[in-house]
Amino acid sequence: MAQQRAVRTRAAILAAAASVFDRYGYDAATITEITARSGTTKGALYFHFPSKEELARGVLRELTGDLTVEPADSHVQALIDMTMAVTYRSLHDPIVRAGLRLAVEQGSVDFSEVSPFPVWAGLSEDLLLRAAERGELLPYAVPRETAELVVSAWAGIQVYARVMAGRRDVERRMSVMWAHLLPSVVMPRLLLELDVAPDRGARVEAVRALRSASSGS
Amino acid sequence: MAQQRAVRTRAAILAAAASVFDRYGYDAATITEITARSGTTKGALYFHFPSKEELARGVLRELTGDLTVEPADSHVQALIDMTMAVTYRSLHDPIVRAGLRLAVEQGSVDFSEVSPFPVWAGLSEDLLLRAAERGELLPYAVPRETAELVVSAWAGIQVYARVMAGRRDVERRMSVMWAHLLPSVVMPRLLLELDVAPDRGARVEAVRALRSASSGS
Repeated sequence: MAQQRAVRTRAAILAAAASVFDRYGYDAATITEITARSGTTKGALYFHFPSKEELARGVLRELTGDLTVEPADSHVQALIDMTMAVTYRSLHDPIVRAGLRLAVEQGSVDFSEVSPFPVWAGLSEDLLLRAAERGELLPYAVPRETAELVVSAWAGIQVYARVMAGRRDVERRMSVMWAHLLPSVVMPRLLLELDVAPDRGARVEAVRALRSASSGS
Repeated sequence: MAQQRAVRTRAAILAAAASVFDRYGYDAATITEITARSGTTKGALYFHFPSKEELARGVLRELTGDLTVEPADSHVQALIDMTMAVTYRSLHDPIVRAGLRLAVEQGSVDFSEVSPFPVWAGLSEDLLLRAAERGELLPYAVPRETAELVVSAWAGIQVYARVMAGRRDVERRMSVMWAHLLPSVVMPRLLLELDVAPDRGARVEAVRALRSASSGS
């Protein structure tokens, strides 16, 4: 029971920290505001996270820690789905938005050792290497280069969509990105089968929610 | 004479502001440090820029204000050259780095009305529209979508390269971006003629410097 309560408290603190980092950025965020939003005490907060730095690291780890690659017909589709699902969640989950902001901005603390970029790039490269083994990729595709380009462009689209349109059309922009990149990466036959529609992330997340509801408790 | 001196002082202040914004970001930058680096007085600084906000706006305007599109064999090459030249300059000119940082980070002040993103996207779209008129683009290319994707991916590559490698390989990453995007945008025949080599920006800037040296004074 006490352990369950601790898990709930920790999650509430991380959610509160994410909202505050998302809104103010790392440097302007205060422990006082995070405590107030979390509905816990400063003592509880410091028990779980000894400093603001550790709170930010907690949010960044949360962003990549629960990253599961959903099964899909092809490894390339699995990569598309990963990016579209996280993009969809960036519209609905402050943890994702806060993590992206912490990853992109240079605050007074260097968080590069918990940056989501190498995690996403590594996962993307793995999926593309497996896709290459299955003959899904053009022979001259270089999985590492494509993986890093996908993660870079994805990060840039998040920033651009926020500055230009308050993030509203970020899913459409990701769909445009995939439509531009895929013909240079995958075998033409596979293009017919890939789904890069803007609402792909919403559908992937819905399937995931259904699956975890039917398997859970 | 007095006017020439004022122009020089203004340039020195902007260069100093750029170094400080590049290093500390908007919120942590101080007028005191900018004044010290510029070698001018606070009075001179406030004469040219009445506030830190105006200094940041000055840096952002400088970033896009001197953006000239160099003549090239094709409009697509002109677009590649614009992005590669600014990328090259981001390695050597604090104004470019500071402008990019101010454009990407959400500080306590909203600078979106002087963001370089819409300027770059507008210029890119113009070049692509002219390229389409000249038959350089695939018939289904959508200049606006490609233009915004290029600017987004470019911004993301700057951020990614900084976090992962201290910016060292940003030119190679831009070259990889163009190699991925162009086959989805331009006519195959044109691909043979386009130069997307990592050192393209350095060469474009060298030609520009030679031209302005031979035409100037």
